Amino acid sequence: MDKQLSRLEQQLQFIVEIDKVKKITRQTYLADLSRKENDAEHSWHMALMAFILKEYANEEVDVLHVIEMLLIHDLVEIDAGDTYLYDEEARKEAAIREEKAAQRIFQMLPKEQEKYVYDLWREFEDRETPESKFANTLDRVQPILLNDAGDGLAWREHEVNIDQVMTMNHRTKDGSNVLWNHLLEIFEKHMNQGNIKRS
Amino acid sequence: MDKQLSRLEQQLQFIVEIDKVKKITRQTYLADLSRKENDAEHSWHMALMAFILKEYANEEVDVLHVIEMLLIHDLVEIDAGDTYLYDEEARKEAAIREEKAAQRIFQMLPKEQEKYVYDLWREFEDRETPESKFANTLDRVQPILLNDAGDGLAWREHEVNIDQVMTMNHRTKDGSNVLWNHLLEIFEKHMNQGNIKRS
Repeated sequence: MDKQLSRLEQQLQFIVEIDKVKKITRQTYLADLSRKENDAEHSWHMALMAFILKEYANEEVDVLHVIEMLLIHDLVEIDAGDTYLYDEEARKEAAIREEKAAQRIFQMLPKEQEKYVYDLWREFEDRETPESKFANTLDRVQPILLNDAGDGLAWREHEVNIDQVMTMNHRTKDGSNVLWNHLLEIFEKHMNQGNIKRS
Repeated sequence: MDKQLSRLEQQLQFIVEIDKVKKITRQTYLADLSRKENDAEHSWHMALMAFILKEYANEEVDVLHVIEMLLIHDLVEIDAGDTYLYDEEARKEAAIREEKAAQRIFQMLPKEQEKYVYDLWREFEDRETPESKFANTLDRVQPILLNDAGDGLAWREHEVNIDQVMTMNHRTKDGSNVLWNHLLEIFEKHMNQGNIKRS
């Protein structure tokens, strides 16, 4: 007979389970190019960006809500893996895998927390609220800042061109016009340096 | 003549600078023992714990404030390095190095954000407010959960005994009696298994 887990035990098992997100490697290099970063590092970096850069959100945002979304949004990659932004085929299948992953991982939590975290994750994916738009903007800005610091290596390796960059990133302006304008300057610089192809 | 950095440029340079915290390795292993974790991963993990476990704080806490403290508290280790909890000599010198580091790193930010982040860091170190007590509790609970998941390897490697564990962790109860009581059960189990010495 299974021992019924206490509320605290459920929460702590979830906390140990999500340790696995530290092993999900992304395509983005650290600023010093020594290695690629992982999802836990990426999420930490964005959560901190949310409170340093909140003044640039197009609409007023509840910063705690933005941060909560950023802290949990990549947990589904524990089962579904990281899907590179510019790999369009892979992205179609990823949505199905991520939905399954959300269900498995979040159901480790007590019922009302499961619902809260699932709803946070869906909110992030749906990009409809001011908080979700700003969180999604930071999700695009963070790797671009690192690619910029790392001389555009990730773009060169994937032979990315400006049409792809614009298609995949143009919704960044939904969360922050100021940050979007800054990204345009970064893209221009890296086209001039030959790191992003002029398509 | 130095170009005057705009407010946004200052903030973005800070965000790229703190990427270095991903390279500060701690003494704690990941739950699967595959490698040690770093400060960025540790901070992400605790920030998420703050919102999952907030109900166990002894006093009511402003969760955003707790999370902000957790996200920034290890940035000083970019210059000062990680100091192992049970290395008492090293800890004395660390305080001086960390104060210097805080000044160098936080002054990259615009003035009022520099003050805000410096004050957050001092608040964490001083453990006086309910938020600081709870944040410090999570800072102790997180590695203990990982050590427990990893069969006590870090304790065995450092030949830690229960007197050291109690001395270094007893203030954990200031932030949460519930979590402290859970830690006592973990310590008891690992004494029984011989991973923590009975001094």
